[in-house]
Amino acid sequence: STPTIAVIGGDGIGPEVTREAVKALTAVAGGDAFSFVDYDLGAERWKRTGEVMPDSVLAELDGADAILFGAVGAAPGDTTMPSGILERGLILRIRFAFDHYVNLRPSRLYSGVPTPLASSVTDRGEIDFVVVREGTEGLYCGNGGVVRTGTVHEIATEVSVNTAFGVERVVRDAFERATRRRNKVTLVHKHNVLVNAGRLWSRVFDEVAADYPQVQTDYLHVDAATIFLATDPARFDVVVTDNLFGDILTDLAAAVTGGIGLAASGNVNPARTHPSMFEPVHGSAPDIAGQQKADPTAAILSAALLLEHLGRQAEAARVTEAVTADIESRTAAPRTTTEIGDAIATRIAGA
Amino acid sequence: STPTIAVIGGDGIGPEVTREAVKALTAVAGGDAFSFVDYDLGAERWKRTGEVMPDSVLAELDGADAILFGAVGAAPGDTTMPSGILERGLILRIRFAFDHYVNLRPSRLYSGVPTPLASSVTDRGEIDFVVVREGTEGLYCGNGGVVRTGTVHEIATEVSVNTAFGVERVVRDAFERATRRRNKVTLVHKHNVLVNAGRLWSRVFDEVAADYPQVQTDYLHVDAATIFLATDPARFDVVVTDNLFGDILTDLAAAVTGGIGLAASGNVNPARTHPSMFEPVHGSAPDIAGQQKADPTAAILSAALLLEHLGRQAEAARVTEAVTADIESRTAAPRTTTEIGDAIATRIAGA
Ligand SMILES: CC(C)[C@H](C(=O)O)[C@@H](O)C(=O)O
Ligand SMILES: CC(C)[C@H](C(=O)O)[C@@H](O)C(=O)O
Repeated sequence: STPTIAVIGGDGIGPEVTREAVKALTAVAGGDAFSFVDYDLGAERWKRTGEVMPDSVLAELDGADAILFGAVGAAPGDTTMPSGILERGLILRIRFAFDHYVNLRPSRLYSGVPTPLASSVTDRGEIDFVVVREGTEGLYCGNGGVVRTGTVHEIATEVSVNTAFGVERVVRDAFERATRRRNKVTLVHKHNVLVNAGRLWSRVFDEVAADYPQVQTDYLHVDAATIFLATDPARFDVVVTDNLFGDILTDLAAAVTGGIGLAASGNVNPARTHPSMFEPVHGSAPDIAGQQKADPTAAILSAALLLEHLGRQAEAARVTEAVTADIESRTAAPRTTTEIGDAIATRIAGA
Repeated sequence: STPTIAVIGGDGIGPEVTREAVKALTAVAGGDAFSFVDYDLGAERWKRTGEVMPDSVLAELDGADAILFGAVGAAPGDTTMPSGILERGLILRIRFAFDHYVNLRPSRLYSGVPTPLASSVTDRGEIDFVVVREGTEGLYCGNGGVVRTGTVHEIATEVSVNTAFGVERVVRDAFERATRRRNKVTLVHKHNVLVNAGRLWSRVFDEVAADYPQVQTDYLHVDAATIFLATDPARFDVVVTDNLFGDILTDLAAAVTGGIGLAASGNVNPARTHPSMFEPVHGSAPDIAGQQKADPTAAILSAALLLEHLGRQAEAARVTEAVTADIESRTAAPRTTTEIGDAIATRIAGA
């Protein structure tokens, strides 16, 4: 039967870039390969209806084979929407409800792509790594609280929750991936300060590593990891880290490899008990929304990750190759969102 | 009476670089200006005696006018020392006991200094900003715990504690500093996910901002802040943020402005109820310890921050100017730690 892909375009540039990702999927697999179902979610819906994610919609999404997500966020200057409503009510709701414990974020510096790094850094070696960010624990749990809210005596807490179960499964995923890459895993944490969580992550990391004697291991404090991302990103192959450190490191990783316009991600449930979700790392960029200025490449590469997850490796490779060819043939001439999407779709069809 | 400066050289390159900082202080203020008292603390002492920081030593340090700190850390490959022992027992013990709520970390890209950033980035403007990192709260409190330690059911938590009292005083310090600089303060947090702490930080930030109408304000999520540090660091003037975000951002800030060999810091108690502590951002770098390979510049710039804190602005300026002149006249020829320290001391004396 035809796999169903739930499409959440969202707000801002989300719908524009998602349209091009759907175009790429259609180009590679044919017009009837997937059944795409659009979902109207995001700031606009919240403003209209007060709803972020009705339970019935979540249940419907759960029936899809995969989710393609654009971006969500309020319009610029809109102060009616409390911070976190969409993030926690929608993105994180899906990640947690569908147990997306592997938040996969590949980074690769394509040749010819402008990077903020000096050539003394980019000349050190090929930059091609993947961050395996834990997606269902840590500071993202929403644990914590507030007392004496709004007073000079206010105390606000945030609790990072880490379990052996949760750490083990994501660390094992990272090692598995490393065996299909360059056999190196770097654990990033801050175990000299966060000793409770740090000891757990280190212990589990060492235990899993023992099962992969061919994989070289490495540890960096998160602060030191940011230094290496700026000075020697070629040293990384697979990085495994917690939810918040992964959030921070992957934006920096995207920046040094040509910007979040190119950074794809997968919120993956490797056990396949729920659908996985694929989304560009960038946000809704409301300032350029509707102007055909957004680069759909990150969304299209996210669609390639979706294909891979569905076991359609050959199609995934064709999309990735078309994107690579498009990126490497870029000139200074500006192109619209649709033009980039069309060019990639044409390459896919021609391949 | 002669101010007392407690000197904690520590381990690895700590003593080497601290020696040059003391040399600079002596050069600028004369041999009798300060009474330096050495403290033997760090991994070596712990190995010898099992002591990290006896209460009596902490009490003695409390009597000093300021503390000059090098770095602490175990020798490479030393696995006898549990992670966090020195960090929490010594550095963080002092920061918390002496209420160092302003962790001050200036970043400046000196002309001619090698940076990992492309000239397309460094050409955007002068890079000169300061991160005001909260130093007594957040995830550094040591709150949290472990249950079912060492089992497959282990749960480890870390609690970030944020108080209106603690946030207000550091945010106010940041605004005060901005009025003496370029009148811009950027709050960095992650209030879309860490909504409890985020709301508190945002509320207090807005309240304090209302007292400084001449200061321009800005907000960035921590992940986005790393992007701007890599792509447009010239946009920053004063950045205020919590303890962990500040830790991460300042290592990256150091990396993009020429490396942690140049990054100074002050752990400041502006209320002066206890001595403040000044330390290079870098660690003990045991791999190059004792080889005269370390750059003492960060330690010397930390000494300049110490002078400023003690109200000796003219001397602080002379040290900073000597360091600037030294940095800007560097050639590719390698110099030893002592040679760099001597060159700077000579410039100070000649000024
Ligand atoms: C929007 C936000 C909740 C999200 C996160 O923090 O995970 C985003 O920054 C990301 O990296 O996907
Ligand atoms: C050594 C460690 C405890 C410390 C910190 O995390 O604050 C260091 O990284 C720093 O930035 O001063």
